[in-house]
Parts: sequence; C-alpha cells; structure tokens
Amino acid sequence: METVSSAMAHGGIQGIYRHDSATTGTSMTFAVFVPPHAPGQRLPVVWYLSCLTAQPGDIVDKGEYRAACAELGIVLVVPDTSPRGPGVPDDPDAAYDFGLGAGFYLDATVAPFAQHYRMETYLVDELPNLVASEFPIDLHRQGIMGHSMGGHGALILALRHAGRYRSVSALAPIVAPSLTPWGMKALRGYLGEAPAAWRAHDAVALIEDGARVDEILVDQGDADEFMAEQLRPELLREACAKAGIALTLNLRAGYDHAYLFVSSFLADQLRWHAARL
Amino acid sequence: METVSSAMAHGGIQGIYRHDSATTGTSMTFAVFVPPHAPGQRLPVVWYLSCLTAQPGDIVDKGEYRAACAELGIVLVVPDTSPRGPGVPDDPDAAYDFGLGAGFYLDATVAPFAQHYRMETYLVDELPNLVASEFPIDLHRQGIMGHSMGGHGALILALRHAGRYRSVSALAPIVAPSLTPWGMKALRGYLGEAPAAWRAHDAVALIEDGARVDEILVDQGDADEFMAEQLRPELLREACAKAGIALTLNLRAGYDHAYLFVSSFLADQLRWHAARL
Repeated sequence: METVSSAMAHGGIQGIYRHDSATTGTSMTFAVFVPPHAPGQRLPVVWYLSCLTAQPGDIVDKGEYRAACAELGIVLVVPDTSPRGPGVPDDPDAAYDFGLGAGFYLDATVAPFAQHYRMETYLVDELPNLVASEFPIDLHRQGIMGHSMGGHGALILALRHAGRYRSVSALAPIVAPSLTPWGMKALRGYLGEAPAAWRAHDAVALIEDGARVDEILVDQGDADEFMAEQLRPELLREACAKAGIALTLNLRAGYDHAYLFVSSFLADQLRWHAARL
Repeated sequence: METVSSAMAHGGIQGIYRHDSATTGTSMTFAVFVPPHAPGQRLPVVWYLSCLTAQPGDIVDKGEYRAACAELGIVLVVPDTSPRGPGVPDDPDAAYDFGLGAGFYLDATVAPFAQHYRMETYLVDELPNLVASEFPIDLHRQGIMGHSMGGHGALILALRHAGRYRSVSALAPIVAPSLTPWGMKALRGYLGEAPAAWRAHDAVALIEDGARVDEILVDQGDADEFMAEQLRPELLREACAKAGIALTLNLRAGYDHAYLFVSSFLADQLRWHAARL
C-alpha cells in the first residue's frame, strides 16, 4: 500500500492510499480518515460508497464528515467507484453512468467487464483485510453507507452479506436498479439479460426475495431531480413495510441530489451508525 | 446580481453569485451562505478571504463551515481573490503568487494593475453594500477572517478600517508581507518601490505604526511548510505584545498549510467571532 496523500485533520489523519488489487487486477485508490484515538485502540469502521463518477477524493473534499468521526471515534473508508487503468473497459460511449466511475458495487459476469469489474468481492474480502492490517479498525464493528449509486451499494452489500454490517444507511439511494434507467443499463451491461441475477443486486428485490437487515436509515431530498425516475424511495418503503424491516426514511424539504445535500446529513447518519457500532 | 448556483445546505442556502463591479471594472464572483433564520431577521456577517490561487468555490467545497454557521446564525461571504476576465493583467510569467488569484486585498497604484486590482475598495465599499441589499445581513455586526494571503487581507483590512469589524481572525496568515517573499513580490508589483505604501498594507508594520484592534485570533499549523519563510507568526506576536493587542496565537501540532488545516479550525474561529458579533 502506497500513501498518495496524508494530512492532519480534526485531530486525526486523512489519507488517500493506493494498492494493487488482486481482485480487480488493477491499482485501486481509497481514502481513510482515522480519528484521534488511544494507542492500541481499535475503532469501528464505516464504509462510505460514492455516487456515479466520483473518486475517493471527492467526498474527502466535500463530505464534511471528519468532525463527526472525530467526535464519535469512527474510521471512515471511501473505496473507489470502479476499477480504473490500462486495459479496464469503459462504456462504449464513455457515458458517466456505466463503466469507469460506475461499477455499481457488484461482480460483473459478462465480457469484457467480468475480468476487472469485481467490486463486490473487492469490498467484502480484499479491502477490509487490507484496511484492517494497516489501520486500527475492528472488523466486528462495521457499518456501511453511501450516496446514490453508493446508497445502492450499501443496501445490497448489507442485504447480501447478512450479519457482516451492524448498521446500514443511505443518502438518496438507487433502491430498485432493475426497474430504473441507470440501474437497468448497469445490470444489463455487467450481468447480461439475466433477471434472477438482476434481482440479486437490487435492494427492493432482495428484500422481496427474503433478504433481511434489522433496520435501514435513508435521507432523501424532496427536490432531488433524480428521485422520481432513478431513485424511487417509495419502492423501498413498500418493501420494508411488507418485510418488517424498520426503515427510517427522512424526506428532506428543499434538498437536491448533490454534495451539499450529502454533507448536510452525513454527520447525522454517522451518529446513527455510532449508536449501533 | 446573477445566481451562478444555489442549493440548500445545513438548513440554509449556499449560493455562488456574480455581478459587474464598478470598482474593479470586471465581473466578480462571490459565495454566500445564509443559515436558517426567522423572517425579517438580519444576521451578523463574517467575510472569509481566501488564499493564493483560490476561487470562492474552493472554500465552499472544502471549508466545512456551514454546520457552524447554521448553529451560530452567521452569514459567511467569500469574495474572489482578484479581478478576472478579459483585459485584466496577470503576472508576466503567469505565476501563482501574483496577478490572477493573488490580489492581496489592496488597491494597486501602478500600471498596468491599478485599473482593475482594486480589491480593498471593492471589499470595504462595493461588496458589503451589494450583499446587504440582497441578503439578510446586519452591517453593524461584521467580522473578518482569512487563510494565508486571506489572513493577511483580514488583518490589514481590520487594522486599516478601525471600528468597521467587530472581530478579526486568521488561519496561517502572511503577517509581514514587506519582509517575506510572496508579500514583497506583490507589494512591489501592485504599489511600486514605495516603502511607506508597503507598510500601510503590512499587518505587523501597521501595528508598529499605531494601527489598533482590540484582539486577534490566529491558528497556525506547526508543520506548515510556509511558516518560517512566508508567514512568520512570531513577528505578529512581537508586534501585538508591544502594542498591547490581545493576540491568541494557537500553534496546532502537526498541521500543514492546506485545506484540511483550514477546515479543522474554521468552525472554532467562527465560534470566536460569534461571541463578539
């Protein structure tokens, strides 16, 4: 692991790091904030999964999470949104919503994406072990959250890996990708025309098909320009109600989909995670 | 005044705006955060002056000030760091430390800079009147702060305009520009070889020559790569001690000069301003 940048912030260390991933077959970048802590102490960790097009540095710049992490004693890790580099295939049209910056947090099964786009295995196997070997985290106290595509990622990883994460939350998540345009393009591109595979990477479908977490926190701006077509929080509400999952869905008046929405509620969500970690 | 962007954040509105300045003869951009407030209420305002190369959007992205402004009921305004646009002269070598992005918050007196580089008049006359006409601020409760070159700006504007600002603070400021490389280049370029004029735009020299404020707050990282050559906080400490100005100079162990230092202490400084506004 190589340090790209590192600086003191809010009494802790905000770094950006790079390593060669055996899972994706590429160099991968990620960010870690370690708050001030006692020597030898191991801290709970929250995984923050980013939105379409983002790199880890974006939420490092714009997320406003460090004060809360320092107060709560939480390590926050931000993985990249896709593999990148020579030989990694992109969308044929280089669109923002598929390929580079748009890995959708799953393992692709169809060519040419299956070779490198293995984000789920990377996030649940390789990266936690690396981070635990390099930073003072306690893998028995993991939470996961994300924004938009990253909210989708947080929800499906928590639902697909029961018991791994003690807490899951999302900001303006894609909740039903097999029914919505960004998601359908991604699922078709990475998994092919395989309805059962799509359902296994769709939070609402996973819940309908029996996957469970105890509770979910979602914040959603009601002025979010993508809510009606791409996000559809009402489908998550219906699925959770039927399944008996305690969903807290906060509709936030006047907020859109962008970073100022994320940074307005990220600390609130971290407090919710801290209470469960 | 034209709105470049505007979004809800922390219960208030973060906007970036543009107007045609009669003072600089250019279009000027600035950012304003207005926290949640009661109808008709007018709020104290803090002017945040940015560092070399910055545009207002930089601290909007990286400053982490909105939660504190919302809690404290403070409007924060971020002017640009120089005039920009067609016909505005730059450093002959397009260096980062003079010309565009490096106006040093003074009125230039020598050609070709005197025509457009009139940042002091812009900041003390034109922009406050514009902001007060468009946003709910109370010009009787103004504070001023800044980072690096902007810390220099905050200090000299407070010292040169006694009584105008109720509070002044700085993060890693240039305190003695007539003795340090960035400052000497700027003062020579904007004011010519005029020692008296240099002293009138140098915080330490202004204090030595009798200018006064009641108190100053400074945060300074002790791992700041520019401290020894460009910033020299010890000169401000000596000048304030001799002049009887209450300087609080916090040396922050391990912090460098960049935005993670700024964002770590900006909220603390806003709390200090709020207690005086």
